[in-house]
Amino acid sequence: MTIKVGIVGYGTIGKRIADAVGLQEDMKLVGIAGNTFNYRIKSAISKGINVFSADHRGTDLKRNGVCLAGRIKDLLGESDVICDCTPRGVGKKNKDKYAKAGVKAIFQGGEKPDIGDSFVAQCNYDSAFGSNYIRVVSCNTTGLCRTLHAIHHQYGILSAQATMIRRAADPWDIYHGPINAIVPALELPSHHGPDVCTVLPGLNVFTTSLHVPTTIMHMHSVTADLQKPASAEEILELFGRTTRVRIVKNSDGIRSTAEIIEYARDMGRLRGDMPEVCIWEEGVGTVGDKLFYLQAVHQESDVVPESIDAIRAATESCSAEESISRTNRSLGL
Amino acid sequence: MTIKVGIVGYGTIGKRIADAVGLQEDMKLVGIAGNTFNYRIKSAISKGINVFSADHRGTDLKRNGVCLAGRIKDLLGESDVICDCTPRGVGKKNKDKYAKAGVKAIFQGGEKPDIGDSFVAQCNYDSAFGSNYIRVVSCNTTGLCRTLHAIHHQYGILSAQATMIRRAADPWDIYHGPINAIVPALELPSHHGPDVCTVLPGLNVFTTSLHVPTTIMHMHSVTADLQKPASAEEILELFGRTTRVRIVKNSDGIRSTAEIIEYARDMGRLRGDMPEVCIWEEGVGTVGDKLFYLQAVHQESDVVPESIDAIRAATESCSAEESISRTNRSLGL
Amino acid sequence: MTIKVGIVGYGTIGKRIADAVGLQEDMKLVGIAGNTFNYRIKSAISKGINVFSADHRGTDLKRNGVCLAGRIKDLLGESDVICDCTPRGVGKKNKDKYAKAGVKAIFQGGEKPDIGDSFVAQCNYDSAFGSNYIRVVSCNTTGLCRTLHAIHHQYGILSAQATMIRRAADPWDIYHGPINAIVPALELPSHHGPDVCTVLPGLNVFTTSLHVPTTIMHMHSVTADLQKPASAEEILELFGRTTRVRIVKNSDGIRSTAEIIEYARDMGRLRGDMPEVCIWEEGVGTVGDKLFYLQAVHQESDVVPESIDAIRAATESCSAEESISRTNRSLGL
Amino acid sequence: MTIKVGIVGYGTIGKRIADAVGLQEDMKLVGIAGNTFNYRIKSAISKGINVFSADHRGTDLKRNGVCLAGRIKDLLGESDVICDCTPRGVGKKNKDKYAKAGVKAIFQGGEKPDIGDSFVAQCNYDSAFGSNYIRVVSCNTTGLCRTLHAIHHQYGILSAQATMIRRAADPWDIYHGPINAIVPALELPSHHGPDVCTVLPGLNVFTTSLHVPTTIMHMHSVTADLQKPASAEEILELFGRTTRVRIVKNSDGIRSTAEIIEYARDMGRLRGDMPEVCIWEEGVGTVGDKLFYLQAVHQESDVVPESIDAIRAATESCSAEESISRTNRSLGL
Repeated sequence: MTIKVGIVGYGTIGKRIADAVGLQEDMKLVGIAGNTFNYRIKSAISKGINVFSADHRGTDLKRNGVCLAGRIKDLLGESDVICDCTPRGVGKKNKDKYAKAGVKAIFQGGEKPDIGDSFVAQCNYDSAFGSNYIRVVSCNTTGLCRTLHAIHHQYGILSAQATMIRRAADPWDIYHGPINAIVPALELPSHHGPDVCTVLPGLNVFTTSLHVPTTIMHMHSVTADLQKPASAEEILELFGRTTRVRIVKNSDGIRSTAEIIEYARDMGRLRGDMPEVCIWEEGVGTVGDKLFYLQAVHQESDVVPESIDAIRAATESCSAEESISRTNRSLGL
Repeated sequence: MTIKVGIVGYGTIGKRIADAVGLQEDMKLVGIAGNTFNYRIKSAISKGINVFSADHRGTDLKRNGVCLAGRIKDLLGESDVICDCTPRGVGKKNKDKYAKAGVKAIFQGGEKPDIGDSFVAQCNYDSAFGSNYIRVVSCNTTGLCRTLHAIHHQYGILSAQATMIRRAADPWDIYHGPINAIVPALELPSHHGPDVCTVLPGLNVFTTSLHVPTTIMHMHSVTADLQKPASAEEILELFGRTTRVRIVKNSDGIRSTAEIIEYARDMGRLRGDMPEVCIWEEGVGTVGDKLFYLQAVHQESDVVPESIDAIRAATESCSAEESISRTNRSLGL
Repeated sequence: MTIKVGIVGYGTIGKRIADAVGLQEDMKLVGIAGNTFNYRIKSAISKGINVFSADHRGTDLKRNGVCLAGRIKDLLGESDVICDCTPRGVGKKNKDKYAKAGVKAIFQGGEKPDIGDSFVAQCNYDSAFGSNYIRVVSCNTTGLCRTLHAIHHQYGILSAQATMIRRAADPWDIYHGPINAIVPALELPSHHGPDVCTVLPGLNVFTTSLHVPTTIMHMHSVTADLQKPASAEEILELFGRTTRVRIVKNSDGIRSTAEIIEYARDMGRLRGDMPEVCIWEEGVGTVGDKLFYLQAVHQESDVVPESIDAIRAATESCSAEESISRTNRSLGL
Repeated sequence: MTIKVGIVGYGTIGKRIADAVGLQEDMKLVGIAGNTFNYRIKSAISKGINVFSADHRGTDLKRNGVCLAGRIKDLLGESDVICDCTPRGVGKKNKDKYAKAGVKAIFQGGEKPDIGDSFVAQCNYDSAFGSNYIRVVSCNTTGLCRTLHAIHHQYGILSAQATMIRRAADPWDIYHGPINAIVPALELPSHHGPDVCTVLPGLNVFTTSLHVPTTIMHMHSVTADLQKPASAEEILELFGRTTRVRIVKNSDGIRSTAEIIEYARDMGRLRGDMPEVCIWEEGVGTVGDKLFYLQAVHQESDVVPESIDAIRAATESCSAEESISRTNRSLGL
């Protein structure tokens, strides 16, 4: 069976999921829905992707010569699952449309948790199996869940803390600052801690968040008090066999988030993406039962494989293991 | 005939030329020579590229488990042409080795002009035909030559000026600043003006250069006094049919250097590269006989197609038109 | 006679003019009017400055414990001249209030030229003498006017061009980007050229403008075709005796906008301000009749001395020479 | 008694200590010693500060017309105490000279701990009383010591952790990057943790450090497990009466490190300095016995008051309380 997938919203995440869907043997990209003409739409057309109008007129798209494949209701009609990649809060407004059209929907982490089952494939695929509405949690929450889940499962976490040094804007985003400042979030805890618990219920985790003037990746400085002591080597061995976690080495010349992305570019990754959470080998340490590590999270792409898996979970098309394996293989992870 | 190409120096430019050589039907990549192990070498190996040691021991490479294909003298022995992509000034030291090995060599723009024939394919391919030593001029000079040559040929340039707002470091480079300043070069003129004249002799061009805290692209603000008046439309029409020049539009949402690169990423370009000089449609204007335009230059990649063409020019393998066309096709330009 | 001055709007410019008024022997600061409580208001209060509410309630100020000196109508009633330092476009809305209150007003360069006489003290003080409404032109226009006026007066300018590399946000401003891009303005010419002509009518000047990710100063790369040839030395000698123009030297270690501001900090300037336009000695050059120079403009402060002079011009209190001299002395220029 | 103070090294810290010494009623600035002419020296001369040559010739200073007050041995001969503000590691080389001249010396935190008594005035003034060699610890260590000491003294710290998000270069420094990356230090722990223990022996503290592309201030995200529980209000009350700690409020519009410095500029602080460690009121929180807070550290100035106190401690001129009080009053803290 081929899963027919529509994408609503064609920005940073939408365009990546569209390309990723195109790489799955068991999926078919019906098309994308957008409002405004721009270089992203232009690029979609040049890849042969069908463009639907997100509103009922599609005025701006038509004015720019886009040959529309239909309106959003047509996209919903032809799709088994919609990936809603609209800006924060818009997904909630769209949910009714999806319900009326009888189509399942995957939302992104900007939506509130009550929109559907919060999801990170390697943590709770099964609990979202068959769900009509799945919420792929945000890039930062996804990154935290991947590593904390692995540690918790193996060693038990009594309590964890993370200081999240966040890139303030995406690479293309020329509007948001700061240009020269560190901006604390002043939420205590930041929303990421509670959000982790939507995926890993009951985990004791406290997060602090700051914005810094970079566009490339987030960085997390994580501390965990373990139930069962572990050496740095054991933790690295654990991360080494955890899916969507990549060990990077300062000794290979990877000294910063910039060089992680340079490595992804060199590997030939589409858009230079790094959907894996990257852990510095030299940045993992233990003091007694306390574990410390540093991880870099690529905000543009780490939720893309999760979204693909969420599509399979929603449609009950295969097991977690099978889905993760297919997704990884197709994306070269 | 297949041209056997070796690459000496595997950094920002070397790794790109290696990949580009691999895409040419009439070329074979013999291998690359480097000194230090790092993620670039790791990536080369994973692509099946032969690695030679640039010095006679290759200690660091061996210690990191690289299975060497030989030493640099072996690389020179097996190659018809060497692309020397070493840091500024090293090419000059290497030239003797190339001469002794009887191998032709392509150098990069960091070397002084007397190292060989300065080269921009669309400007002076024929004058470098059969040359033993060709110097592909720097990214900025290449960018200026492409557009000034087209204008000069069609309308005649009485005098031209460019203020070059330069990215201060490459994306991966975490060592160089400034973080928050504008740094004037205080050369009058900057070296780019005279360097343009190594390709376009006699052109009257004056350049000023400044560094700004960005890593993505250079930007040139160019003014030219024309011999024969031209409208903005005529200039855009000219640029539209000039090779390796791309018109970008603010109205497509391309409002900055960041969005040019985002577009290149979306197009699926390897490493998100944009070897074409990009001209803003809305940034071309004329006042009387004066022409103004803004162009963005991708410092990491615009010399890559030139280097490929220089290989063909040196080996007299085909005409300028034929070489440019093959290179463009292979790189999707 | 003491000129009673009120300030409406207490941001980047308003707070500086307030302090500068406080330093003038012939002026008295009646107070400032603002809407919102913040650290700037807190600092004003600690300096003993009277705070009036800009709206008729002053709710936010009162809630934060500010003891109000009155409402804006009280401020207008007690002042001879108002300096309106409100955001772009608000001055226009306020003008009626000032007219009704019979108070003269100085506006800033964000307002349109028709709001009053466009003004740069050393260029056209006399033409604004006695005017009810004066517009101190923007930081960039002020910077251009100072140097172009001096050159034009001495050597005659046939045509001038400037590429203006603009800081994208003020140091305190964490909201505006870009973080990593160059953003062209794509106005041809940028509005600065025509704005210069509101001060220097008939001058032939064309400007191009770009934003870069720095917060410190703007930089202008200027070219002028002179009527009468001049050497770089002559131009430097001219700038050396031009008021509010400062020659800086790379050979003194001033290699960037950052080091200009560091010098201002070291000199003990309030807020580390540099109201003078700074010209690099090593950045002035001539080729035939063409003159090239680089100037740095401190966007936060260069209009402050102009605003003080505008107050004296509006109130006919003394001559241009006398006013400029008093202002410079009081500010240590 | 007046303490005669000489400064060796006149960079970021040296120039600030020189100005601070000049503000102390019980101190006299003999002069400064430097090697290279630059705008800092120029500014010192304009303030009437005596300049000595750091080497025995003073060639560069003389060539630039500096009228030398003598050589470094003359400075040592006339001073009771030297503040050595030379780059990391140079102080160690200078120590012998100071010993031979029989002059006491204050070193900065770039030197290794064995150079003298590590010092933060409010933590261990008495233990350095009468010492010949005192080491004022680094800006980050000073910042950590101030707040951890206060908490430890009142509530007891079982263990503390800090993630230190460091500005990568000083505002004037155009040489160091990164421009667009986060660079982890990959020391586990970073050297700051052990360095805190040179001042607060036995404190259990673990630090992680990263560099980010900003020039203004460091930021520390601190967690502490307390022996005796405390509410956020109690901690804020404690910080409120701790010297050289300042509470800042998001509700006053201080949302970032940039606005802290803007506030310092508005207050009229020399160079816009903020020697106090700044704690966000809204950033202090507790969960059980765990305390979280965010503090910003001004790397250019927080060690300046410490250095002044160290001079008094070395010369046994007054008590800790008296010295701190005099220093604070003179600097407006």
